[in-house]
Amino acid sequence: MKMMNKKVSVLLLILLSVLSAVNGQEKSKEKQIPDIPGYITLKCDFHMHTVFSDGKVWPTVRVTEALNEGLDAIALTDHIGKGKPDTDVIKNLNRAFEIAAKEASGTGLIVIRGGEITFPMPPGHFNALFLEDVQKLVTNDFSLAFEEAKKQDAFFIWNHSNWKSPNKKWEQDGISIWFDLHSELLDKGMMMGMEVVNGMSYNLEAHRWCLEKDLAMIGTTDIHQPISFEYDLSSEHRPLTLVFSKERTENGIREALLNRRTAVWFEHNLIGKEEFLAPLFHESLKVVKVIYREQIAEVVLKNESAVDFILENDGDYSFFNKTNIFVVKAGEKFRLGVKTGEILDQFSLKFKVKNLYVSPEECLLTEISCNTQ
Amino acid sequence: MKMMNKKVSVLLLILLSVLSAVNGQEKSKEKQIPDIPGYITLKCDFHMHTVFSDGKVWPTVRVTEALNEGLDAIALTDHIGKGKPDTDVIKNLNRAFEIAAKEASGTGLIVIRGGEITFPMPPGHFNALFLEDVQKLVTNDFSLAFEEAKKQDAFFIWNHSNWKSPNKKWEQDGISIWFDLHSELLDKGMMMGMEVVNGMSYNLEAHRWCLEKDLAMIGTTDIHQPISFEYDLSSEHRPLTLVFSKERTENGIREALLNRRTAVWFEHNLIGKEEFLAPLFHESLKVVKVIYREQIAEVVLKNESAVDFILENDGDYSFFNKTNIFVVKAGEKFRLGVKTGEILDQFSLKFKVKNLYVSPEECLLTEISCNTQ
Amino acid sequence: MKMMNKKVSVLLLILLSVLSAVNGQEKSKEKQIPDIPGYITLKCDFHMHTVFSDGKVWPTVRVTEALNEGLDAIALTDHIGKGKPDTDVIKNLNRAFEIAAKEASGTGLIVIRGGEITFPMPPGHFNALFLEDVQKLVTNDFSLAFEEAKKQDAFFIWNHSNWKSPNKKWEQDGISIWFDLHSELLDKGMMMGMEVVNGMSYNLEAHRWCLEKDLAMIGTTDIHQPISFEYDLSSEHRPLTLVFSKERTENGIREALLNRRTAVWFEHNLIGKEEFLAPLFHESLKVVKVIYREQIAEVVLKNESAVDFILENDGDYSFFNKTNIFVVKAGEKFRLGVKTGEILDQFSLKFKVKNLYVSPEECLLTEISCNTQ
Amino acid sequence: MKMMNKKVSVLLLILLSVLSAVNGQEKSKEKQIPDIPGYITLKCDFHMHTVFSDGKVWPTVRVTEALNEGLDAIALTDHIGKGKPDTDVIKNLNRAFEIAAKEASGTGLIVIRGGEITFPMPPGHFNALFLEDVQKLVTNDFSLAFEEAKKQDAFFIWNHSNWKSPNKKWEQDGISIWFDLHSELLDKGMMMGMEVVNGMSYNLEAHRWCLEKDLAMIGTTDIHQPISFEYDLSSEHRPLTLVFSKERTENGIREALLNRRTAVWFEHNLIGKEEFLAPLFHESLKVVKVIYREQIAEVVLKNESAVDFILENDGDYSFFNKTNIFVVKAGEKFRLGVKTGEILDQFSLKFKVKNLYVSPEECLLTEISCNTQ
Repeated sequence: MKMMNKKVSVLLLILLSVLSAVNGQEKSKEKQIPDIPGYITLKCDFHMHTVFSDGKVWPTVRVTEALNEGLDAIALTDHIGKGKPDTDVIKNLNRAFEIAAKEASGTGLIVIRGGEITFPMPPGHFNALFLEDVQKLVTNDFSLAFEEAKKQDAFFIWNHSNWKSPNKKWEQDGISIWFDLHSELLDKGMMMGMEVVNGMSYNLEAHRWCLEKDLAMIGTTDIHQPISFEYDLSSEHRPLTLVFSKERTENGIREALLNRRTAVWFEHNLIGKEEFLAPLFHESLKVVKVIYREQIAEVVLKNESAVDFILENDGDYSFFNKTNIFVVKAGEKFRLGVKTGEILDQFSLKFKVKNLYVSPEECLLTEISCNTQ
Repeated sequence: MKMMNKKVSVLLLILLSVLSAVNGQEKSKEKQIPDIPGYITLKCDFHMHTVFSDGKVWPTVRVTEALNEGLDAIALTDHIGKGKPDTDVIKNLNRAFEIAAKEASGTGLIVIRGGEITFPMPPGHFNALFLEDVQKLVTNDFSLAFEEAKKQDAFFIWNHSNWKSPNKKWEQDGISIWFDLHSELLDKGMMMGMEVVNGMSYNLEAHRWCLEKDLAMIGTTDIHQPISFEYDLSSEHRPLTLVFSKERTENGIREALLNRRTAVWFEHNLIGKEEFLAPLFHESLKVVKVIYREQIAEVVLKNESAVDFILENDGDYSFFNKTNIFVVKAGEKFRLGVKTGEILDQFSLKFKVKNLYVSPEECLLTEISCNTQ
Repeated sequence: MKMMNKKVSVLLLILLSVLSAVNGQEKSKEKQIPDIPGYITLKCDFHMHTVFSDGKVWPTVRVTEALNEGLDAIALTDHIGKGKPDTDVIKNLNRAFEIAAKEASGTGLIVIRGGEITFPMPPGHFNALFLEDVQKLVTNDFSLAFEEAKKQDAFFIWNHSNWKSPNKKWEQDGISIWFDLHSELLDKGMMMGMEVVNGMSYNLEAHRWCLEKDLAMIGTTDIHQPISFEYDLSSEHRPLTLVFSKERTENGIREALLNRRTAVWFEHNLIGKEEFLAPLFHESLKVVKVIYREQIAEVVLKNESAVDFILENDGDYSFFNKTNIFVVKAGEKFRLGVKTGEILDQFSLKFKVKNLYVSPEECLLTEISCNTQ
Repeated sequence: MKMMNKKVSVLLLILLSVLSAVNGQEKSKEKQIPDIPGYITLKCDFHMHTVFSDGKVWPTVRVTEALNEGLDAIALTDHIGKGKPDTDVIKNLNRAFEIAAKEASGTGLIVIRGGEITFPMPPGHFNALFLEDVQKLVTNDFSLAFEEAKKQDAFFIWNHSNWKSPNKKWEQDGISIWFDLHSELLDKGMMMGMEVVNGMSYNLEAHRWCLEKDLAMIGTTDIHQPISFEYDLSSEHRPLTLVFSKERTENGIREALLNRRTAVWFEHNLIGKEEFLAPLFHESLKVVKVIYREQIAEVVLKNESAVDFILENDGDYSFFNKTNIFVVKAGEKFRLGVKTGEILDQFSLKFKVKNLYVSPEECLLTEISCNTQ
């Protein structure tokens, strides 16, 4: 055992220092999303698996992956009551958390103890976060599992509601159905958030229900394999929940979730309430400079986020160098020639931000104020 | 002189063969736009300058650039009556064409003889294409220049109408103004097309006027420098006129222009009439496969063009793996999970193609028919 | 359980098809090394770990990684008698193989049952490949472990001989020491190969010993983490053993190892005997064309391998377009102007291939025959 | 005319600001070569053509190209007595310089007035730099041209000596021949430098002669086309003369040339005298850190230049993580594990730098001193 560690000490110390250089590169994979006034924006993945259920990696791997991608918090949520044969891995649903928390110690990454309450639909699968003892939720009776989680003061998320039980007669059509049981769970405080995005799937019904029933919008990977198997991290990011938190702590995250201060970052889309998306956009797309060249206003804008914005002109002025709709790439600084007709001290640009969704069909409307220098 | 040629023969023959390898790479810079039913789509730049007016390159450079970028036709349109001091370059406005045509001989590139009739606004600058003798247009009286061009059966394009004469009291505001003189020129058949795009400038008024007055929509570079100074050809393309021609000849182009069969390709936008943009989109975004996985239709699509399409869902079904609006990158093959609810033999996807403009404010509406395999 | 599978069937089927597209990209990560006359060149990694000892991934991950990188064969060689606490993972040293072999079934990837006999130096760590029952090697007496492996007809590899036991008084200096015990093992047929490369470490002494004692040269990763943590597969490859095999089977590999037909591919270096490196180089760097331009021979060469070759001119002619030493990148096609002085029907280029090692200090000398066309 | 300028003022001002952004990117194309103790390292191209002889661009283009690539000095050296028909361009061999110097004014780029004395071999082509009036060198008698240049205190460079006159009976074989006339020119002070590199051609004989006869080694492009036609500037650089100058002025360059303080940068090779290449290497490859991990010294090195170095171990220690020869890429920071066997306060690494040529066949031998921290 010691020998092993010793080997690590020599062969790997150099290796690790090399890796630290590589990590330097990986740093650039860390995708930026700005804070918003009053809150820190935390990048969180609340749904992941390890070898302690049907995942394919040791819990430490989830920590390294999260650090490589610049995440702020993760929850390991192995299936409760499902997974590998007992002849391979001992079922102790607290182990993934324990191992990961130890690995993350000192890194700043927040690891949340959780589990996936796994039953056929209804109720389907629910993540319970902030548990004290996951093992106590092991039971064949779903209501007992929910009650135990409630007792532990869990935050409940209805996962991939568009996935139906195969032992029922209906088939998979990707459309979520709301059962009476879900109303019951909602009333009992056993449904506080929903996955609007799970892996590659966007769930339109869940999006609607979150708005109707004031649930936290959640985006997760539900990752089982090493993350690099499913995302090309040099060009993509994993789906995430953005949590607008008062502080960078587990308690901060819990408070934000309870108050529904979340948004979902899925590919180049942001999904959330206008009260969060509007400031997020304004902290992302900054006016760097406004000057007139003859009577054309040159507005220099900088997209400081990792999101490509699709902007549609919704204002009174047309642009000298752009058509009605255009994409502002992540990190891009660009010039917009605004045909204001005359020289103005102040004017506004109005845009529909087509890939920022305040509802499944509505995008963010926004105004950018420009003061001539 | 011979010596020079000989030197070329030895030092450069090897060099040229190396360059042919480099050209192989450049080939990949050739941006693809498909043909449409009944017509060949020709990529044309009808507005360029050389040292024979205020441009900075010898005419052969324009030919090499065009070949590198896979253009089908170019017109060298040096300013008539403007340019370099006579003490440097001899003013012979037919020379640029003669030199370029010789260089292009045998390459397949079509070189069109033209010139830019250059007067203060009104009338402003007009390109005359398909001239026989540009030199005959040299005069201080713009009406004589127009008449001579008409006599030579020219195709007339009003260039950058949003550029105003500086010796007038109005200032540059990037907004085009229509003068009585322009009505007159239109009536006399001396305005047949307009630049909707000139270099980096998109001209909204010109776009409208082309639709109102049935003029050919033209997109050009108006390039003076080597093209690589203004476009990063590894990631960008120059603005172009797409000409939908019956044949790959100068006469084919002329016939197409006279019948207004053009569109403008500007950055990732296509600007034109629906009758051209609709088939162009359908030849670009191909349905590769439609199969059901359980009750979710998996539609495999391939964007065979060099244009990134911004698609907004306008149909009855939502998508399993996409939100309401998304970008399909040039060359990309991707899968769309369509939630048809039940298994259908046939269904349609409806999209707004937000960056294909049938008017300044309206985009192409389109329907993609999917037949299950 | 079934439910889980069902979930996989719906959510993941589409995902998998998307991944198959991604795999298409990964295909390009498959690094090419040509076959040599008489033998297939198989890319093999014979030293890897999983959660069944101190590795961090489930055995299936090793299979997917190997397929992504285009490997032909892998051996999972978990430490015998070392690893995770029994309270997490059940120690059954055959499980990693069983799980991986099932995963690899039908893919063409050859999975070899193996184990790492893990004792302090001497003897240090030895890999035993082609075992029948790894579990039978569990013992505190190293000689019993070796004898059992011998009984099972194992192929023995001395791993990272430059790593010394920490409970000895000497410290790690990266230099291998040969103990009497190693002579004994060699004599008993319990040392048939040595790791010349282990992960990032190149072992000069092992390289020498392989030549002196006719041992198979082996290059491995000794990977514990997901492979993407330690190698940027978009630009790098893992260290590998190239096995020159008569057939693409486990038996083929065993026969080739027994007959010492291997080489090591480490970064951009190939390490092996001249009898293998010479044909490998000739199958990699192909003469495409030889023509004269005046009296300079233009030789077009294509590097068809994934190795960048460092070539030093060792012949009589200097080059028109190259200095004495130059790098021919993987996949590159390039022209060499050879100053033969007069036009020849046939001539030879002579090179030192500086990064192909026939011994620690000697590189491959080679001759490329050029026949004028 | 004014109108034209005005148009530039409006359409192009915005364009220019956009270009300045693009130039920002081009900045990264500026390849770095460090200064050496006592001297500034200036990147110079002393052989280029414009439309004023057989080049294809206006002189301003050469200035913009040079600025884009971060050059410090250029000489426009149009052929004296050769070029375009008088019916196109007026032959005034001072014009290229005048136009370029005006364009470069205020940019920091040094523009040198020069011309290429163009006669059949012998003497062949010679560049005369630092002329006062190029036009005065126009004559059919080469000796008069040389004398006039001498009178103007020119610096003389024998260009592409491996190119022979086609009206002679010998053919092009790429091998330079020294004529009696060249001895005469040398004696008269009319040969002070030679092109060791011209475009894609490396001239071994010229390299030798420079060493034998103490001539300045010169590397040039001899570019006729826009530079982007012949070099992919995103990955390549043009061949250059590195001038080790006391000051960043034309006089500084002249003094350095007269004292033969130059080297040639060709692809990834540096060609020059040891007295310049040794400090250039030491200013390029910096020791960042030396620490011991157990008894292996970890030396962190940083290649601060734009040259990839090919290093061959010539010292007493072997490396833990590298074989005998390896490439250190431009800009790369990397770790070398040095097996010193015991912990040393100080030790030296010895390398052959295979691509730094102190003669056609000999490379730089160097020693890097490492002091443990």
